[in-house]
Amino acid sequence: MPELDNLMDALGQLPTPALVVDGPTVRRNLQRLADYAANVGLNIRPHTKTHKSRRLVQMQLEAGAIGVTVAKASEAEAISDPGQDILMAYPPVGDSRAKRLAELAGDRNVRAAVDTLAAVHVASAAAVGSGTTVGLLVDLDVGMGRTGVPSPDATLPIAQAIDRAPGLRLDGIMVYPGHIWHTVDEQSAALQAVGNLIGETLELWARHGLQATIVSGGSTPTAYQSHLVGNLTEIRPGTYIFNDMNTVRGGFCTIEDCSARILATVVSDAVAGQVILDAGSKTLTNDRCIPAPDSGHGHIVEFAGAKITRLSEEHAQVDVTACSSKPAVGDRVTVIPNHICPCVNLRDEMWWCEPNDFPRHLMVNARGKVQ
Amino acid sequence: MPELDNLMDALGQLPTPALVVDGPTVRRNLQRLADYAANVGLNIRPHTKTHKSRRLVQMQLEAGAIGVTVAKASEAEAISDPGQDILMAYPPVGDSRAKRLAELAGDRNVRAAVDTLAAVHVASAAAVGSGTTVGLLVDLDVGMGRTGVPSPDATLPIAQAIDRAPGLRLDGIMVYPGHIWHTVDEQSAALQAVGNLIGETLELWARHGLQATIVSGGSTPTAYQSHLVGNLTEIRPGTYIFNDMNTVRGGFCTIEDCSARILATVVSDAVAGQVILDAGSKTLTNDRCIPAPDSGHGHIVEFAGAKITRLSEEHAQVDVTACSSKPAVGDRVTVIPNHICPCVNLRDEMWWCEPNDFPRHLMVNARGKVQ
Repeated sequence: MPELDNLMDALGQLPTPALVVDGPTVRRNLQRLADYAANVGLNIRPHTKTHKSRRLVQMQLEAGAIGVTVAKASEAEAISDPGQDILMAYPPVGDSRAKRLAELAGDRNVRAAVDTLAAVHVASAAAVGSGTTVGLLVDLDVGMGRTGVPSPDATLPIAQAIDRAPGLRLDGIMVYPGHIWHTVDEQSAALQAVGNLIGETLELWARHGLQATIVSGGSTPTAYQSHLVGNLTEIRPGTYIFNDMNTVRGGFCTIEDCSARILATVVSDAVAGQVILDAGSKTLTNDRCIPAPDSGHGHIVEFAGAKITRLSEEHAQVDVTACSSKPAVGDRVTVIPNHICPCVNLRDEMWWCEPNDFPRHLMVNARGKVQ
Repeated sequence: MPELDNLMDALGQLPTPALVVDGPTVRRNLQRLADYAANVGLNIRPHTKTHKSRRLVQMQLEAGAIGVTVAKASEAEAISDPGQDILMAYPPVGDSRAKRLAELAGDRNVRAAVDTLAAVHVASAAAVGSGTTVGLLVDLDVGMGRTGVPSPDATLPIAQAIDRAPGLRLDGIMVYPGHIWHTVDEQSAALQAVGNLIGETLELWARHGLQATIVSGGSTPTAYQSHLVGNLTEIRPGTYIFNDMNTVRGGFCTIEDCSARILATVVSDAVAGQVILDAGSKTLTNDRCIPAPDSGHGHIVEFAGAKITRLSEEHAQVDVTACSSKPAVGDRVTVIPNHICPCVNLRDEMWWCEPNDFPRHLMVNARGKVQ
């Protein structure tokens, strides 16, 4: 993000560590996905867990998104507005969670994903209690083994229960191909297998008089290969708006596509061959880089040869022995985290950067909204 | 914490995930350390990064602490009061950080740790600019290799620079034995080596007419062996107030000494042999257990045979194949995290539990204060 580098003087005023975001790169990332989705006839329902910001929801909707995805009801409360279309890609289990979601359905089109009959019952009771209608998608596991029923056959009793239950509307099928971190060129077989499972499910449902108006899939690593699945109606990538070292080292984007960085200050160089940044695990998190677990705790843009070898809560230990020059105490650097989503969730604000302007304060509205 | 288990009905009203803290266990942890420190003649300056709460600072001071430790200036602003004695165990580097700290010195006794001449100069300029006096300790590396000058000899030019600089007061020496995770029985040699380094430093300073009124050390793993160092004046443990699976599996406490847990709800059991909790890495963090990296992402108290094998941002995947019974969708469990400090930092509030009373809301005042 060359525009941001020109702003290092303005950034010099910000207390560190700080989350800085480059506006032009965000807009390019949004437009690129919008163009792809339009070309292949897919809707985009971005996962807002990455940015947790009302303003960025607006930008995504302006770029053509049909609605938003959240993980939790409290996130939906924090980042959505009346009239919007919201999918909670998460089971509405827990009385509080189901109730909050059902209440949002009073003036929004609210959907959630379920993989148990218990969740169907909780969602139905909450919708009836609130006098609203909640749409449900059946979560089908396509290989990640996290949530989702294990087979097309196993979707049927849940879909039928939704179809019969008061307060609910059967909306379709949700899959999450979170196990697919193959390089783009090698995703084809895995995505076609996902398509086959969905196809079987759709046929089974049709034989039982059930329809899926939504087939929701997609992740950032698979986003630009989503057409290979063959029967999706929408995709739900999240990270694509910012990108991070997971998506760079996975081969899904370049460093120049990373629109969010942590601005940090060198606070010590007392140990030989090492400098300390003021961004530790309470800023960068201890999330490893999925495609390169031994690559350290993020990438220092200005010192590409440096390696963040260890994080304490407030310290990053940086090995600078491979650097031709090293930063001095008091210098500022920017770090692209391994996984940007939990880093954003640690912050009250991000600093939005536009060329030739001072950084603007942007709230992380759903920071900490995990209920 | 048997008292807390009796409160499961009251906890049933809290949205999950939630941080719940058992008051009697906190008080027992504080009293135990106070008794030890009094017996061996050491002061306690607890590190508040663990709880980030003004109320718990008060409890620690009431239990005899002489002051508090923070990592960052913004933490000090959030949790301290006029008249208190505060050590920022961190270099006051960065104009904003140095200035905020120096301003706090207007009505508090403020100290910081330095390991470079650059930090001495920044701290002096900030103190002069604020018209205050900041006390500095020289950070001596005793084996962790994170911050701290590498030898007793290397402390001297920094101590002399502090002694000469306007706005500064030479307070003493700080060490952090964060590399010592030996079992209690095996800590003796490592702690005596720390004591030898400190002893050399004190002798060197004395030969140059310099005094260390404070020699600050200690961590939770070494807390109860601090007398073996021989020449400390105070210790700075943080985790001891709550404990976590790091301190349990390291042999430094028992499960019953863990006063803080994450209350979570089972939201799915669709995948065979597994249940999903609504507490992912945005609640438990991906910090591994230091003494047992393969032990999973925390300990489920009610299902000791279960293992949290993987975290997504909002999901914990729990292997329940070794459990004689498994929790059902909608059930609530409590989890002791691997590392409690960053988990607290993810939350706006904790729920304080006393026997036969409803949970009380307690602010995490310094949540997110990493600048």
